[in-house]
Amino acid sequence: MTDSVDVDVVVVGAGLSGLAAARGLQRHGLSVKVFEALDRVGGRVGSATVAEAHVDLGGTFVGPDHDRINALADEVGVGRCLTHEAGDNLLLWRKDRKRYRGALLPIGATSLLDLARIRSSLERMSRRIPVGRPWSAPDAAGLDAQTLGTWLTARHAGQAAKDLLAVVCKTSWGCEPSEISLLHVLHYIAQAGGLDPMLDTRGGAQEQHFVEGAHEVAVRVARALGPDTVRLGSPVLRIDRSDDAVTVHTDDGLTTARRVVVAVPPAMRHRIRFVPALPAAHRHLAQRWSPGVLSKIYAVYDTPFWREQGLSGMTISDEGPVFITFDAGSPDTSRGVLLGFIGGDYAREWDAVDAAERRVRALSALADLFGERALTPRGYIDQRWGEEDWLGGGPTAAPGPGAVASLHARLTEPVGPVHWAGTETARRWAGFMDGAVAAGERAAREIAVELTATPEEKARRCTPEEKARR
Amino acid sequence: MTDSVDVDVVVVGAGLSGLAAARGLQRHGLSVKVFEALDRVGGRVGSATVAEAHVDLGGTFVGPDHDRINALADEVGVGRCLTHEAGDNLLLWRKDRKRYRGALLPIGATSLLDLARIRSSLERMSRRIPVGRPWSAPDAAGLDAQTLGTWLTARHAGQAAKDLLAVVCKTSWGCEPSEISLLHVLHYIAQAGGLDPMLDTRGGAQEQHFVEGAHEVAVRVARALGPDTVRLGSPVLRIDRSDDAVTVHTDDGLTTARRVVVAVPPAMRHRIRFVPALPAAHRHLAQRWSPGVLSKIYAVYDTPFWREQGLSGMTISDEGPVFITFDAGSPDTSRGVLLGFIGGDYAREWDAVDAAERRVRALSALADLFGERALTPRGYIDQRWGEEDWLGGGPTAAPGPGAVASLHARLTEPVGPVHWAGTETARRWAGFMDGAVAAGERAAREIAVELTATPEEKARRCTPEEKARR
Repeated sequence: MTDSVDVDVVVVGAGLSGLAAARGLQRHGLSVKVFEALDRVGGRVGSATVAEAHVDLGGTFVGPDHDRINALADEVGVGRCLTHEAGDNLLLWRKDRKRYRGALLPIGATSLLDLARIRSSLERMSRRIPVGRPWSAPDAAGLDAQTLGTWLTARHAGQAAKDLLAVVCKTSWGCEPSEISLLHVLHYIAQAGGLDPMLDTRGGAQEQHFVEGAHEVAVRVARALGPDTVRLGSPVLRIDRSDDAVTVHTDDGLTTARRVVVAVPPAMRHRIRFVPALPAAHRHLAQRWSPGVLSKIYAVYDTPFWREQGLSGMTISDEGPVFITFDAGSPDTSRGVLLGFIGGDYAREWDAVDAAERRVRALSALADLFGERALTPRGYIDQRWGEEDWLGGGPTAAPGPGAVASLHARLTEPVGPVHWAGTETARRWAGFMDGAVAAGERAAREIAVELTATPEEKARRCTPEEKARR
Repeated sequence: MTDSVDVDVVVVGAGLSGLAAARGLQRHGLSVKVFEALDRVGGRVGSATVAEAHVDLGGTFVGPDHDRINALADEVGVGRCLTHEAGDNLLLWRKDRKRYRGALLPIGATSLLDLARIRSSLERMSRRIPVGRPWSAPDAAGLDAQTLGTWLTARHAGQAAKDLLAVVCKTSWGCEPSEISLLHVLHYIAQAGGLDPMLDTRGGAQEQHFVEGAHEVAVRVARALGPDTVRLGSPVLRIDRSDDAVTVHTDDGLTTARRVVVAVPPAMRHRIRFVPALPAAHRHLAQRWSPGVLSKIYAVYDTPFWREQGLSGMTISDEGPVFITFDAGSPDTSRGVLLGFIGGDYAREWDAVDAAERRVRALSALADLFGERALTPRGYIDQRWGEEDWLGGGPTAAPGPGAVASLHARLTEPVGPVHWAGTETARRWAGFMDGAVAAGERAAREIAVELTATPEEKARRCTPEEKARR
């Protein structure tokens, strides 16, 4: 298809979304070049080996209906295992450490009822948000004028419900409830099919993880693209665009293409100089959809000693900095692997101290939960996504009030030859690895329709979803 | 002082702040080069001639205590005049058009008392915010967790008070009350010395304007820097930094310097690639201090016909898109000059329509206020700051909830050889032209102390304000 251009399509970003886009484009017979700013593929998915155990530094879990990432992993032969959940969970709450099973948190009947009321309100409100079109929800502007935090206050949520929703907020968006648009929260829940699918382990988005790590999926997809397709350490600095072609600038020079897929977090769009400039609303989106801050720690032990005590490894704590943990062990190791999250205000403070101090604070938080043995792991690692220059933060965009109703539509709207991917642009499971893959595949389809189809074919090839968007 | 570098200091941005920095640096005997992305100087200050009348497309008004901009204008010989305010003001409110004088809006006694209560609350709260250090205010995090909008609701403000505070919000920050951190609003008021100095014409920040336009100040300061000092159309793309030097990249090549002053809006810092990357909090600031959206329209008539009707030209309207107007006539013309503002949600909608339709809607709004004669001006112009690629929006940053307490300190904190200016970084009158000039002068002093003073001199030269910051 190449016709006086270097390649048919340039993809910016070799995260799961960009890689899925490149794979989809190749399958449509189009030539592709992928530029990645980092010196590795995977974007917000990363890996390390700690005491011989694989750990996921970024995106980790997948749910049973995460069709796109699961299909992609199957294709490249990366297997999944169930997240360990046998045993009691722990809640460290108001200085008190309690065991519990299932979803019934031991916070007292009054708080539990209050939490149920708040959750049910959120569920009900989320069902009124049209998936993929939050701006068309009833009273979209009114919902967008609130934050999750001010809504909780307005609904007279009790302190326990507020604190537990803050746990959800920190884990999901890396921010405090006071920072994020209520409309975005409701739409995000709608995109996940509800709070249970979003938050649960069994049956939900934390049900499984990849035995060899999620990063291995990215590595194998990148390899399958063929030699010299992905260029690492090569940030895209500028994109000149005409109606039907682009010139992409990197430190190494210029690449011409018929289309470009920009598969980076929304805030990183702002770092690319478009000539001519993007329309105002697209630029405002890039300025206002900034990411939250989330950090992860892994402590790897000789054995999963908590299991002997009848504990699942799943805990929630109101003490910080580690506020939620999982047993992230895989069948390929006998090691015990504890994963902890540090987000929102906790992360801002903890991220800023030196490595030794971060380790002390994180392990001390684990010891409060699992006892003294947690203090002496065989290996420890932490990953501060807020420190990543080319990602800006993590795990996904956390738009503030007013940034959704007026700007969400620009997430996916192409600008001439410029198309958009990245998990935030997905219709379902935005913010998850599944959304990243789905968005990349959607961008590839958009371009394939434009570049390879006759007009009659174009009409036929559109998915119903794409037709709705046109 | 130049010692194996091209210049002592590079300044990024030829707005008033960057120009004031360059002027200050030259006065300390340092060599300077200024790079400006736009093809004109002035940044958020601009000018045009409409039916032979000078109009200010950006920053316009100055107050009697705007010492720095007024001194700078005096030095380069740009004179000021009083803003016209003789006559009745108009309020178009709930479909009703009423005349009034002074500050007592004709909204009924109940609404007036309610507005007084809200204003007095804001004043009182703002006095508890340490100027320049909002993060150290009592309950800074709690204030930062609210928006002006949610605070108004929590204080049970009546609809009139809410709508009038929205006028203030749109004019000051180009956003809706639901979008901006309450802590930022309170600190901004504190920086201006109170709501009256911030909002008033006589005695306040709207008291005077420049006869030849504010842009003329920028033009003359730039000219006085000498030939070849300011390079237009030359965006800074990358800054490599070591402990004591920088290499600044533009389309034309590299410039080495001992220091750099980045004098651009906070969100535009994000578009410069720093190598090595800035510390995380500095990058998060750049991602989260995005600007609002404000547009201006000018209609120029043969005469200021409203004055004959006993009207001042100052109006407030709840109909939009023009929600506030001023008589911006100068003694150098017999023309009548009406200035109208369009901001917040109004601007997002109005900015998006074509030029002819914008004109129709704007003049129609003026006609609702001033009668049919307003429909046929001799000249008309509008300026949409939200459309400006290298400024991002206008008039100043509008940080959302959570973005102030944790990040404000990074506005001015140097990173090695990188110093910061721009009106947002000013200690007083941040967001105004006076703040822009003061911030540029402060950055110049910081650098002069580092580059030209002996240690003993450094201690002496520090202003008390700078000592407090150290």
